[in-house]
Amino acid sequence: MKVPKAVQQVIDSFERLPGIGPKTAQRLTFYLLHVPQTELDSFAQSLEQLKKNTMLCSNCFSIGENNPCAICEDSQRDHATICVVEQPLDVLALEKSGRYKGVYHVLHGRIDPLNSIGPDEIYIRQLMERVTNGHAKDVREIILATNPTMEGEATAMYISKQLKNHAPQVNVSRIGRGLPIGADIEYADEITLQRAMEGRSDY
Amino acid sequence: MKVPKAVQQVIDSFERLPGIGPKTAQRLTFYLLHVPQTELDSFAQSLEQLKKNTMLCSNCFSIGENNPCAICEDSQRDHATICVVEQPLDVLALEKSGRYKGVYHVLHGRIDPLNSIGPDEIYIRQLMERVTNGHAKDVREIILATNPTMEGEATAMYISKQLKNHAPQVNVSRIGRGLPIGADIEYADEITLQRAMEGRSDY
Repeated sequence: MKVPKAVQQVIDSFERLPGIGPKTAQRLTFYLLHVPQTELDSFAQSLEQLKKNTMLCSNCFSIGENNPCAICEDSQRDHATICVVEQPLDVLALEKSGRYKGVYHVLHGRIDPLNSIGPDEIYIRQLMERVTNGHAKDVREIILATNPTMEGEATAMYISKQLKNHAPQVNVSRIGRGLPIGADIEYADEITLQRAMEGRSDY
Repeated sequence: MKVPKAVQQVIDSFERLPGIGPKTAQRLTFYLLHVPQTELDSFAQSLEQLKKNTMLCSNCFSIGENNPCAICEDSQRDHATICVVEQPLDVLALEKSGRYKGVYHVLHGRIDPLNSIGPDEIYIRQLMERVTNGHAKDVREIILATNPTMEGEATAMYISKQLKNHAPQVNVSRIGRGLPIGADIEYADEITLQRAMEGRSDY
């Protein structure tokens, strides 16, 4: 028996998504067969509109409804502090935590030589321009919030060196690394424990 | 910061799918922001067409491109043997195994009193009609292939009783239960082992 073409096409579309295997794609597709047509139409429409109704902010390269984005336009925020992250999703996560009041810079990747991604493939040059160009001389701190992975650490290291060379007046910090809340020291890996010891704070 | 509306709509659409939580929905949506518009359009179109280009077979209630479906129309198959399954996906799985040459009957559910699904909510009556009506008197065997769960077993039990009452000439069998291939007796649960013992075959 061949799967109906219309079904196979939806299965194929789901399978192209990261982390969705053939079985999950099948399960999602057959679930959608029970859903009202109006809901399918609105799902379809939201996909079509996704990229048409969003744009990259030409200042921080975050994804927003307008250019510049809402955060870059917000005069209530501290434009002297820039938090550098790998992905637009990281901005969302940090915004949800609600503590950070500065602005962002999204690299859209990390330096990853094994996948041939060098410093020029991500928005590092644009960060340097933001820090060194005329009217932005008032940037005081750059918080490097790339992921605590091998590639993320290498990217943070590279950017901090560049900043020391081209904008020595700017404070460069790295987001805190250590035990996540709710974790168990017994089960933590060695590098996390090393970083947690190095990053200890006065009590 | 508010998530752009176009992004939030796609996140919401994904979140409505079973087994997709808020984090996965976010991840999939942000992945789609990097995908070419043509791919988004074809994903959207496949969703819109999903239900329009498929139909329920009025004989076996499987999902196909035509009515009756390709399996019910196939004269090469053994129409005297009907395999009863819970969901259209089960037909797919059994067809992939490639051994079964009979036809199917899809119940679209199982008897599940806790969720107020009784025998009348699923296609049991239609199965009885297939077995007892005039030109189908030649049905020889019904294989009950509902899932080996509490509800699946109850459904199989109910159907077998109905068949004994209304079509005593038909052989009723239950799909084999026991250890799945590649399993380890040490880690198998008790009920599986009981069933495997009961279902042993001559060697």
